[in-house]
Amino acid sequence: MDSISPILWTGDSLRLLDQRKLPGKEIYVEISEPEEVIRAIADMVVRGAPAIGVTAGFGVALASQTIINKSHEEAVAYMKEFCSLLGKSRPTAVNLITVVDRMLKVIDKLMPYESMSQALIKEADNVQNETLVSDMNMAELGSKLIDIDSTVLTHCNTGPLATSGYGTALGVIRRAWELGRIKHVFATETRPWFQGSRLTMWELKRLGVPATLVVDSAIGHLMNQGYIDCVLVGADRITANGDVANKIGTLNLAIIANSLGIPFFVVAPVTTLDSQLLEGTEIHIEERDPREITELFGESISPPEIDSINFAFDVTPNDYIDAIITDLGIVKKPYINSIKDLNEYG
Amino acid sequence: MDSISPILWTGDSLRLLDQRKLPGKEIYVEISEPEEVIRAIADMVVRGAPAIGVTAGFGVALASQTIINKSHEEAVAYMKEFCSLLGKSRPTAVNLITVVDRMLKVIDKLMPYESMSQALIKEADNVQNETLVSDMNMAELGSKLIDIDSTVLTHCNTGPLATSGYGTALGVIRRAWELGRIKHVFATETRPWFQGSRLTMWELKRLGVPATLVVDSAIGHLMNQGYIDCVLVGADRITANGDVANKIGTLNLAIIANSLGIPFFVVAPVTTLDSQLLEGTEIHIEERDPREITELFGESISPPEIDSINFAFDVTPNDYIDAIITDLGIVKKPYINSIKDLNEYG
Repeated sequence: MDSISPILWTGDSLRLLDQRKLPGKEIYVEISEPEEVIRAIADMVVRGAPAIGVTAGFGVALASQTIINKSHEEAVAYMKEFCSLLGKSRPTAVNLITVVDRMLKVIDKLMPYESMSQALIKEADNVQNETLVSDMNMAELGSKLIDIDSTVLTHCNTGPLATSGYGTALGVIRRAWELGRIKHVFATETRPWFQGSRLTMWELKRLGVPATLVVDSAIGHLMNQGYIDCVLVGADRITANGDVANKIGTLNLAIIANSLGIPFFVVAPVTTLDSQLLEGTEIHIEERDPREITELFGESISPPEIDSINFAFDVTPNDYIDAIITDLGIVKKPYINSIKDLNEYG
Repeated sequence: MDSISPILWTGDSLRLLDQRKLPGKEIYVEISEPEEVIRAIADMVVRGAPAIGVTAGFGVALASQTIINKSHEEAVAYMKEFCSLLGKSRPTAVNLITVVDRMLKVIDKLMPYESMSQALIKEADNVQNETLVSDMNMAELGSKLIDIDSTVLTHCNTGPLATSGYGTALGVIRRAWELGRIKHVFATETRPWFQGSRLTMWELKRLGVPATLVVDSAIGHLMNQGYIDCVLVGADRITANGDVANKIGTLNLAIIANSLGIPFFVVAPVTTLDSQLLEGTEIHIEERDPREITELFGESISPPEIDSINFAFDVTPNDYIDAIITDLGIVKKPYINSIKDLNEYG
């Protein structure tokens, strides 16, 4: 099995597999300037909430290597300003905020810059290792929910490219496949960014898992024709009541699966849980550049000056979700209680 | 209001708006050779089942203008051979066959060539006029189902480009808008061919109807957030029990609208009813070239040699459909009875 490593820390730079260029080209972008990390996240060189978190960690580590000539006060002010900008590079990914907060705690220990830099590199490294461990836990737990010989449907990209570990929903799928529980995978292309066509199909092919690509609008047909035994998706943010913000189109899968009696599973680490938010209505939905919809390869595919809305995410109400597979355990309805227990005793 | 005329008969030639070039360029292809009509249909210069039917009618009219130097027997043999080839120019469009059969009936009257040519032009003209009248009837009937100040959602292209008349689902929408009943339209881009981005948004802009383009996977979010008051789609084929075959993605709209209590309407002329088929399971689902999904503008967007299925349409079970708006009346559940009544007494 070929390994997939989208984020590599070299010691004084960050190497990111440019996910915009996949699957045509496998090119690593070498980043030495901390500000480039912010741009790389905003421009989606790296994407996927956990992978963004890992990148952010190394971004702060990288920033700490530039403060050598600054006074302690200047250095701390610069680091805090950098963290603030970094935290805003993508609006919906909760891991980004969580990791930046972890890094800020290290900064707040007011160490001399050399120790601070080492401590920040260590902390970013911890984030990446914890991501892999967490992914593996979800894969083990989740794979047991998949019946033998299942055909599963997934959306967007939730594999190693998205987490820099083993994957969330796709981690469960590849583990279930290793265990002989999965017969076939259907992946949606995931407009407008084609994460499914470009990334998930690339990963599945790399991993040798038999898979078929369909357009997003084919999900109802696939499910109604009996092709699909269960649906597995990731999550960008989960509120205290179990509502799930994830890639636009997730809600379609959830409503249709629910309506047709097909199990719908969300796979996400507990770091995705945002207990500050009581329910999905409180989640801000990012709207991205409409040109992602109206243009392809810079060529317009729609009339000039039309209106277009490019919602990056939707919110799936908890009622449609049969189980949320976390790294600390599988939770079920009522989520308001099971998630609380997970946070307290998990 | 700017008129949209995709098919113009000049008296001795056929002018077709090249729909492959829209929305970037508005180019009419002038056709004087009958064989070019066959090529124009096959190459999708014109698409949409009713518009293909109208084009075919004028194609036969054009062919009849070339028989002046032929003997009567030669002329009839040529015309029948032409009709046979024309009928095979697209595999699934039922209107194409229906119209070719109408033209063959005229040819079978064994008139002298001048009268035959005039009669064929008249018959092609009838087909186009009947399409317009049928579209206008659906628009009048359907617009009354739309509540004042509605925001509606539609899929694929069902406007004048598709019918050469007023449109089916989009005809209802534009009429309801003229009557002040529609506030806003959301149109899906409709992968893989982008009929929504390219054609529907072009028509709505031309007609001055306020509209917003979204990706196919945004429909759940739009409906769940309360943006949408009703959904309107066309149909490729309707079985005796009211099951509807239409562009892939229609079933998603139907299931989600149904689940969220949003009215879901199908708009199609009675010529779309296929009473030979009892239910949707009997409809063969066409699978088109997977490269429509894996490539864009001839460029691959997925890894080489992956598997992809390109279902051209899906079947929506009648239970999800709140009403079918035909040119002879609006039918509701139970469709097995209401469609029978329509066929018998409509």
